[in-house]
Amino acid sequence: MAAGRQLRVTVWNEHVHERREPSVKRIYPGGMHAPIVEGLERELGHGVTVRVATLEEPEHGLGEEALAETDVLTWWGHAAHDQVADEVVARVHARVLDGMGIVVLHSGHYSKIFRRLMGTSCSLIWRSDPGGERELIWTVDPAHPIAAGVPQPIVIPHQEIYGEFFDIPPPDELVFISSYEGGEVFRGGCCYRRGAGRVFYFSPGDQEYPVYHQHEIQRVIANAVAWCGRASAPNDRPSARQGDRQRNWYM
Amino acid sequence: MAAGRQLRVTVWNEHVHERREPSVKRIYPGGMHAPIVEGLERELGHGVTVRVATLEEPEHGLGEEALAETDVLTWWGHAAHDQVADEVVARVHARVLDGMGIVVLHSGHYSKIFRRLMGTSCSLIWRSDPGGERELIWTVDPAHPIAAGVPQPIVIPHQEIYGEFFDIPPPDELVFISSYEGGEVFRGGCCYRRGAGRVFYFSPGDQEYPVYHQHEIQRVIANAVAWCGRASAPNDRPSARQGDRQRNWYM
Amino acid sequence: MAAGRQLRVTVWNEHVHERREPSVKRIYPGGMHAPIVEGLERELGHGVTVRVATLEEPEHGLGEEALAETDVLTWWGHAAHDQVADEVVARVHARVLDGMGIVVLHSGHYSKIFRRLMGTSCSLIWRSDPGGERELIWTVDPAHPIAAGVPQPIVIPHQEIYGEFFDIPPPDELVFISSYEGGEVFRGGCCYRRGAGRVFYFSPGDQEYPVYHQHEIQRVIANAVAWCGRASAPNDRPSARQGDRQRNWYM
Amino acid sequence: MAAGRQLRVTVWNEHVHERREPSVKRIYPGGMHAPIVEGLERELGHGVTVRVATLEEPEHGLGEEALAETDVLTWWGHAAHDQVADEVVARVHARVLDGMGIVVLHSGHYSKIFRRLMGTSCSLIWRSDPGGERELIWTVDPAHPIAAGVPQPIVIPHQEIYGEFFDIPPPDELVFISSYEGGEVFRGGCCYRRGAGRVFYFSPGDQEYPVYHQHEIQRVIANAVAWCGRASAPNDRPSARQGDRQRNWYM
Repeated sequence: MAAGRQLRVTVWNEHVHERREPSVKRIYPGGMHAPIVEGLERELGHGVTVRVATLEEPEHGLGEEALAETDVLTWWGHAAHDQVADEVVARVHARVLDGMGIVVLHSGHYSKIFRRLMGTSCSLIWRSDPGGERELIWTVDPAHPIAAGVPQPIVIPHQEIYGEFFDIPPPDELVFISSYEGGEVFRGGCCYRRGAGRVFYFSPGDQEYPVYHQHEIQRVIANAVAWCGRASAPNDRPSARQGDRQRNWYM
Repeated sequence: MAAGRQLRVTVWNEHVHERREPSVKRIYPGGMHAPIVEGLERELGHGVTVRVATLEEPEHGLGEEALAETDVLTWWGHAAHDQVADEVVARVHARVLDGMGIVVLHSGHYSKIFRRLMGTSCSLIWRSDPGGERELIWTVDPAHPIAAGVPQPIVIPHQEIYGEFFDIPPPDELVFISSYEGGEVFRGGCCYRRGAGRVFYFSPGDQEYPVYHQHEIQRVIANAVAWCGRASAPNDRPSARQGDRQRNWYM
Repeated sequence: MAAGRQLRVTVWNEHVHERREPSVKRIYPGGMHAPIVEGLERELGHGVTVRVATLEEPEHGLGEEALAETDVLTWWGHAAHDQVADEVVARVHARVLDGMGIVVLHSGHYSKIFRRLMGTSCSLIWRSDPGGERELIWTVDPAHPIAAGVPQPIVIPHQEIYGEFFDIPPPDELVFISSYEGGEVFRGGCCYRRGAGRVFYFSPGDQEYPVYHQHEIQRVIANAVAWCGRASAPNDRPSARQGDRQRNWYM
Repeated sequence: MAAGRQLRVTVWNEHVHERREPSVKRIYPGGMHAPIVEGLERELGHGVTVRVATLEEPEHGLGEEALAETDVLTWWGHAAHDQVADEVVARVHARVLDGMGIVVLHSGHYSKIFRRLMGTSCSLIWRSDPGGERELIWTVDPAHPIAAGVPQPIVIPHQEIYGEFFDIPPPDELVFISSYEGGEVFRGGCCYRRGAGRVFYFSPGDQEYPVYHQHEIQRVIANAVAWCGRASAPNDRPSARQGDRQRNWYM
């Protein structure tokens, strides 16, 4: 799937919820990073080598050398943003400006690294009703490489609700907008260029729902990793432009 | 409301549906332009002088002189896009590039003038179930002058459904995103700069629903007219940022 | 150089100046398209198949079938913009929205197709003193695939002067800015997304100077063709970020 | 000049060079802030109240209360960026996100506050030859309120040279591009929206040259203050679009 290039990816996971909360452990027994890795390997195949790093490792698994050998970093964090060392954040930040890609997932919107890259508060409105709600992810830039091969819309049966206003800089490229049963909307797929690096924020993925097991979500993450690593395959058949699709097939 | 400047506004209305369809005539007995004019005068007061022009007038009411004396033009059309003379379209286009603002409403997305300003097909997905659906209009740029003084979200009880993919250039500024009961989302409030002119597209307003009688919608149109005419009042209290607002108050 | 994909490129050339003006014929005996084709083949190698089309061919060499088999079109025109049939322009426009890339060169800024894609007048300031002036092309987005492998700045010894204000929509991505000995600046490398297609405007290339024989310029055109065709090779060593470069080496 | 609103402006100056270097003291005997204040008062008149704050004051003159009463802050710093307390930077940052405007001048590109708002290194190329060079400031968005009433180009007879690559996020709106005798170009007038606040970066103003005494520069700063404070007067006669202007009048 990746075009002519071996990407070295580090999947970073805080890895706190999965160990202390049974409800999360049931969904992600191998950690939330496991299905993310699985998806990358399925979608990008020989084009990718993936390693995992977590908060509890020395330097959170993000030492100088590890970062130097990373083309794209994915980031999931929630409960322990404050425990990420400022020194590591500065190192990741410098590496992004130097050309490393970074894919920030879900509650990672409040991570130190994302807020540093954005320059804003990155606050948002959220609602977490028991059982969650159906989320629909709409492609608003169907020719974008990150939207390649995904249905219009992607349906997540149960998910936490994120809503606007999301305090981010105007995205350099807006790829996805989500809606929820309650009517909220959210700019959940946003591209940024920062220095020589590329940044993609993707909102799905609360720890209470099996979102990262879903193939379409894995596909988007793989597309995003390829895009951030400047190894996108062409998006030749923009799914959102299919004239014959059924309207409201997702209902 | 307008800041220190007398704006000359021409409200252009195709004025076809209101005359031939009883269901529309009932909602807009004075034409769809009537509540638009009313809203502009209420919101902008002494800062504005408004005239109306319609398709059936000579040159559609958009002769050289009329345009020369127009600071901002609003545009509603649907049934008769093809009857708008190319020569008039060229004249309006030139006048926008020369500095006139233009606010394009609802089905005006398919008007010749909007497609000419955009350079794209301006096609979209739509669905028009009997009775319509509730539309929520979310502000995603709460400090924007066009979003001044509106609730988060604006609720339209019944409205036709517009959905993505909306084939427009990436907006220079994206102010509003709508969602519908069926789950669709739509980039329904989009700013563009073209030449010396400003363009705002605003999606609400199907002829079958009393949308233009709604004060919040009139407020947005007035804000948009002021913005396109570079006479915005400051937006000092961005409504979407109120920390104490009730979540889901609109349900 | 191209990443994993065979691109089908049509190099379109008005081909008027080269045949009627001895000064131009001397510089481009095989037509201006000849060095453009040569550069594409050298830079993109097996990743590309190139055909040439010109104004005088039936349908300007841009019939339905020819366009259907074109992934990226390059466009040079100047003396005969008006002779390009509206029907062909509409066909090219539709094909761009449907996903074909287009690279518009130099005086092509005034072509019907570019103005249609932009929605603005596309006028600019120009100056054409005998002998031309040195143009410097500065990369302002060094990690962009279109800037891969070019010096900072690119030096064109003699070139016609283009200057601001250039009446285009704000570029979706601005890659190059030129300066001239007289002090003018020009946004000469601009990316746009229109529908499913990508557009790149690149300003160098007056017919009176051997600009298209220059390897750096050929390189940019090849990069732009790859980008518009969504087949970019990664830009791993952004030239503009080299810390050790000599300042003002070009003087 | 300002439209219908009293703006409270704080002009912040590091105020180090002027006190220790005779060459600077000669140019700015009252401090660099003096001509900035003078320009604001001349251009914005009754629409503005201005106070000055400097590094050596307690909390650098930027305590809670002072910031709460500031609508727009201008920032000049160079020799002592590191001496600005992190706590003050965090306070200014929060205030910008909350709606205060900020105009960052010249070497302020490397200030803590600007780097924090941008999320990038904000590094650039510079050259400081004795006597400086002529800088030309070209308007590339002539209808922008910040460009109102300035000549095309603005000429600064002697100025330090800033050049690309300037490591900033792609500007939300690009208003000015500078060129220098040596041929460099620089994106020297850049708008950003961050949270509810507006940011403008403006590059002129090295301490060794009397740049801030120049009326056109004062005019731009006043326009920028009004824009950041959302109190722009309309820009009705975009100077860069005058068809009858003399080309190269500045040579």
